[in-house]
Amino acid sequence: MTTAQDLGLWSEGPNCLPPGSLNAITDVPGIRVGHRTMSGAGLATGVTAILPHDGDLFRDRVRAAVEVFNGFGKSAGLVQVAELGTIETPILLTNTFGVAACTLALVRRAIAANPGIGRNLSTVNAVVLECNDGAVSDIQALAVTEADAFAALDSAATGPVAQGAVGAGTGMTAFGFKAGIGSASRRMSIGTQVFTLGALVLANFGRAGDLVLPDGRRPDPRRPAEAEKGSVIVILATDLPLSDRQLQRVTRRAGAGLARLGAYWGHGSGDIALGFTTADRLALDAPAFQEIRRLGDQHIDLPFRAAAEATQEAVLNALCAAPATTGRTGLVHPSLADWARRSPK
Amino acid sequence: MTTAQDLGLWSEGPNCLPPGSLNAITDVPGIRVGHRTMSGAGLATGVTAILPHDGDLFRDRVRAAVEVFNGFGKSAGLVQVAELGTIETPILLTNTFGVAACTLALVRRAIAANPGIGRNLSTVNAVVLECNDGAVSDIQALAVTEADAFAALDSAATGPVAQGAVGAGTGMTAFGFKAGIGSASRRMSIGTQVFTLGALVLANFGRAGDLVLPDGRRPDPRRPAEAEKGSVIVILATDLPLSDRQLQRVTRRAGAGLARLGAYWGHGSGDIALGFTTADRLALDAPAFQEIRRLGDQHIDLPFRAAAEATQEAVLNALCAAPATTGRTGLVHPSLADWARRSPK
Amino acid sequence: MTTAQDLGLWSEGPNCLPPGSLNAITDVPGIRVGHRTMSGAGLATGVTAILPHDGDLFRDRVRAAVEVFNGFGKSAGLVQVAELGTIETPILLTNTFGVAACTLALVRRAIAANPGIGRNLSTVNAVVLECNDGAVSDIQALAVTEADAFAALDSAATGPVAQGAVGAGTGMTAFGFKAGIGSASRRMSIGTQVFTLGALVLANFGRAGDLVLPDGRRPDPRRPAEAEKGSVIVILATDLPLSDRQLQRVTRRAGAGLARLGAYWGHGSGDIALGFTTADRLALDAPAFQEIRRLGDQHIDLPFRAAAEATQEAVLNALCAAPATTGRTGLVHPSLADWARRSPK
Amino acid sequence: MTTAQDLGLWSEGPNCLPPGSLNAITDVPGIRVGHRTMSGAGLATGVTAILPHDGDLFRDRVRAAVEVFNGFGKSAGLVQVAELGTIETPILLTNTFGVAACTLALVRRAIAANPGIGRNLSTVNAVVLECNDGAVSDIQALAVTEADAFAALDSAATGPVAQGAVGAGTGMTAFGFKAGIGSASRRMSIGTQVFTLGALVLANFGRAGDLVLPDGRRPDPRRPAEAEKGSVIVILATDLPLSDRQLQRVTRRAGAGLARLGAYWGHGSGDIALGFTTADRLALDAPAFQEIRRLGDQHIDLPFRAAAEATQEAVLNALCAAPATTGRTGLVHPSLADWARRSPK
Repeated sequence: MTTAQDLGLWSEGPNCLPPGSLNAITDVPGIRVGHRTMSGAGLATGVTAILPHDGDLFRDRVRAAVEVFNGFGKSAGLVQVAELGTIETPILLTNTFGVAACTLALVRRAIAANPGIGRNLSTVNAVVLECNDGAVSDIQALAVTEADAFAALDSAATGPVAQGAVGAGTGMTAFGFKAGIGSASRRMSIGTQVFTLGALVLANFGRAGDLVLPDGRRPDPRRPAEAEKGSVIVILATDLPLSDRQLQRVTRRAGAGLARLGAYWGHGSGDIALGFTTADRLALDAPAFQEIRRLGDQHIDLPFRAAAEATQEAVLNALCAAPATTGRTGLVHPSLADWARRSPK
Repeated sequence: MTTAQDLGLWSEGPNCLPPGSLNAITDVPGIRVGHRTMSGAGLATGVTAILPHDGDLFRDRVRAAVEVFNGFGKSAGLVQVAELGTIETPILLTNTFGVAACTLALVRRAIAANPGIGRNLSTVNAVVLECNDGAVSDIQALAVTEADAFAALDSAATGPVAQGAVGAGTGMTAFGFKAGIGSASRRMSIGTQVFTLGALVLANFGRAGDLVLPDGRRPDPRRPAEAEKGSVIVILATDLPLSDRQLQRVTRRAGAGLARLGAYWGHGSGDIALGFTTADRLALDAPAFQEIRRLGDQHIDLPFRAAAEATQEAVLNALCAAPATTGRTGLVHPSLADWARRSPK
Repeated sequence: MTTAQDLGLWSEGPNCLPPGSLNAITDVPGIRVGHRTMSGAGLATGVTAILPHDGDLFRDRVRAAVEVFNGFGKSAGLVQVAELGTIETPILLTNTFGVAACTLALVRRAIAANPGIGRNLSTVNAVVLECNDGAVSDIQALAVTEADAFAALDSAATGPVAQGAVGAGTGMTAFGFKAGIGSASRRMSIGTQVFTLGALVLANFGRAGDLVLPDGRRPDPRRPAEAEKGSVIVILATDLPLSDRQLQRVTRRAGAGLARLGAYWGHGSGDIALGFTTADRLALDAPAFQEIRRLGDQHIDLPFRAAAEATQEAVLNALCAAPATTGRTGLVHPSLADWARRSPK
Repeated sequence: MTTAQDLGLWSEGPNCLPPGSLNAITDVPGIRVGHRTMSGAGLATGVTAILPHDGDLFRDRVRAAVEVFNGFGKSAGLVQVAELGTIETPILLTNTFGVAACTLALVRRAIAANPGIGRNLSTVNAVVLECNDGAVSDIQALAVTEADAFAALDSAATGPVAQGAVGAGTGMTAFGFKAGIGSASRRMSIGTQVFTLGALVLANFGRAGDLVLPDGRRPDPRRPAEAEKGSVIVILATDLPLSDRQLQRVTRRAGAGLARLGAYWGHGSGDIALGFTTADRLALDAPAFQEIRRLGDQHIDLPFRAAAEATQEAVLNALCAAPATTGRTGLVHPSLADWARRSPK
């Protein structure tokens, strides 16, 4: 798998933070990622699962925040995350019309583990985010099924993250190039402790010609600059102890990472970030009082920077890892890696 | 069908507004409502459809606004309504785990009418809102199907609105009483013109003992006051020309109507209002510039009042129209109408 | 001082919470309130100070949240409170055109105590909220000075809170009656511990004829129902340990308390709530990590109820404590206490 | 005055929009800008006035929107702009502790023109935004007076905008360089019509070393990278007819422009954008119904791009126009223009 750093496309400023060992969201301890890739017969789509920990999320919730930069999107579960600040299912990414099937899959898994859901327990809030891969795949086929969602969930693992045209990213494109899933991470030192913030993106946004590389170059995909009908989903994970408010503010900085790529949160693009911390989980059977750790705000610029940088690099990685693809209408979506190899600085 | 006014439960202040002829959301010209009621075999659930007009909503959108008073809810489509301020499908109400099926039904209908969706056209944003009827119905059965959603859509009609234990309201309860669907409307005179604002609620909220009637009485359902696991959805419709901002502000006032009933937007309750105006629709093929009419703000208290009053009365109507029901665990949910008949002022 | 309970105007439901011993914001340990009342020569205005603790707030901040129900208001400092969730000065209430003088007074006091402000330290965010007392007082005189703000701050004390036509409330009116400052509190038992939530309101809102008492009566002030040009400020204080998110959600419930009085957050009214907790303060010299306690959400309806009830009763107390006054244009603003005495239930 | 384009620091992408003839906010017809520059005796501060038109703004309001990227700021008037979407005074920019004096100046001017303010008319909402120039100027002197505000207002004129260390920008710094006031504009062609969007920034943000030029270079001011205590205010003006919602969305894109410069909306920075349109003003004596034009959303990416680009270039212009300055503690804030001249690409 080719990365932006492999191709020399990532350039660092003096204040930049170092990546984790995998330079992926899985550098955050306990995070697992799984893909279900679906292709052939006009299809290039799939499901990607992000699991914050290996326990039962309905009983052991992680704290989360949502930021909507442009809300042209059809995700499930965000209203409740915004209110309660918790995630109680794995996170699934898929195509726009796969949200219903993924939601049902998450509901069924949660009920199987917790038979009281909707009875003596409250209902369960499935979190599913999406982009429209209709430029490459036959989205009207409504091809994603509950079984596909289960496959993504069951394949989730720690370690390196497959990127590019895999899972939910199989049919996605960005800035006129083939894109899909990308990931990156940053390490943050506070006193003697080291924490990690990781990003995983589903990149399907940006007009042809708008991409700006960190070195100022604007790669030309030699395609018409059509109006955006894409989207980009950013999942941020960290093990840094943050208050709910701090987590919200950190999540907002994903938008800065997107803008640095030349994006402007376009009208037709659902640009949404979901951030969570694995620190200080909330049990369903919480005691009357629980302690949540909060970072001193004198250090908060550190995760702000990490969120912006990791988001920016994760999108570049999505672009660099995806091979050229021919779209549904015959139009080729070239590879940024190919462009980079023939365009020395 | 018994109403709050029939039972003498509605008392007006000196500044109150008059109801429309049906005292229902269908007093707003063109609005249609349909129900699919499902009962038997442990089920008491269903779907309710609200159609803002009789055309193709994907091509001829109504402007809309969302207000979340407490976001413990799993509705579909609200992120995009919040961003774009438009509704492009009918609105469906159902139980929490029926959202996925209703979403798919709306997507399929939209694609059937507009084959370019997700291809040369953007995808479609289905709007589905929900409450948890698990106290009365077997919600884990995931019983609502796309066919049920189609049935509700196909039965939609102008004229009087069936209320109480019908459609999505079949299994809903509020303040310890049986509840469900309720509606009310208010007429607003501005100069020589008369406009209407109507509310339709899916009422499934409020602890036993908390209900306050307009005359100050607190009806006792003689049930334990359990923690809320309900919700309430308020749909507001008007033909008054309002700017996007004004429509947002009007929609917010549904929360005042709920609070007047003794509610406090409880933790476990998804208290959400969706407002739309049939004035100044937005065509998919809009011209470069279009005019949207705006009410002079010197008159804006009029729809503010109408929204609060119609919401409050619609909930009372939901309570008054629903007969007593035995819940899933054998607990009886009494009828507010019965209480009113034996409790003269 | 006459209260709503003295006059029999407060009626409780079965789930209502008990008041603290003073039934005032000062039931929350450490809270101090001070008034500077200015009258004569066409003036009926002043300043009210609320001090969350007796230390230096710039160095020892309390966590806070803001909710704007209707933003027709000119308060100072709310943008930063919304972002950071902290208060770093005392809170001052005054008339609309007194905000600048009160801001300068808070800035000067903060600099005097912390000479590094705006130099090696950041600047200071003064929190000042306001209503328009122009119906009774000559607001164009810009009569409030820094000295008046200092007088309110220096008179702040624990113990009973003077209410009605005092301090910032001197010239305020509500629902056609004379109003001003009101306060109330609620006790919350969680396990073996008892916590308190108190409200202090500056009540200057509501059209004549709109007030609804808890017993359903609508007192008629025998005045024309003019368009609202008032406002209402609600200050909520508690010693309950709450996360930032929980504090935000509790503060929102002040709006339910206002709506129960017949208000609908009118267009011309700046209806704003500011809530803070004295638990888990944030020091300017905070360590890298600090613990903030969070209430289990299974108990969160308790402070939700307390916020709604205390706000509702505080407004009634403001109305009951204020004697009849003749306004600037000769119109009499009657006393709700007088109405209550001649209107037995 | 040196600009980024003069120095070759602005590089355009294929989709970039052309600037107006002045490349300044005053390219929008009717906009006037005035400065009051205060220096000497330890002071380097001032006031900048932006007038949306040459009439009485209290009687003839422009529609406006506010976006807060990071709310570490002490501006006046934003709560009401967020609620009502209108500006009813000129906009003043100044230092943090000058907000009160500027507010009073705007209130007095409004009362002089409209003697009913606070009496038969509502009060007036003064709009004042600020940054902290304490690194260069003695902010504790509270030196800005109402007379300084009047001077800025009275000097406002159409035509070229003085930039750099002038007006409110006199003592401001950004990314370790001297900065201050900057401006830029973009032209937007829709059909046969041409519209303009202009930005004026008060730039006082960004850590040393973080600035990224459009060509990817990172100018080093050779200064320590201290924690941010700055801020940046972005004023966007346009003559494009936009609905309230569209104007809100356009204003949000100023944040993308800031992020492209390497900013991440740092913790200690009050990063706020205020956008207004001169189209379809709202009269105080508005009729019952008024038409507001709305751009077809198929064209909305055009002002989105214009907002991001004009903001980005306006900040670069602020940096390029300001000469090197020695700060209050003796530290030199170098000139970006000097850096550019000695650093050929």
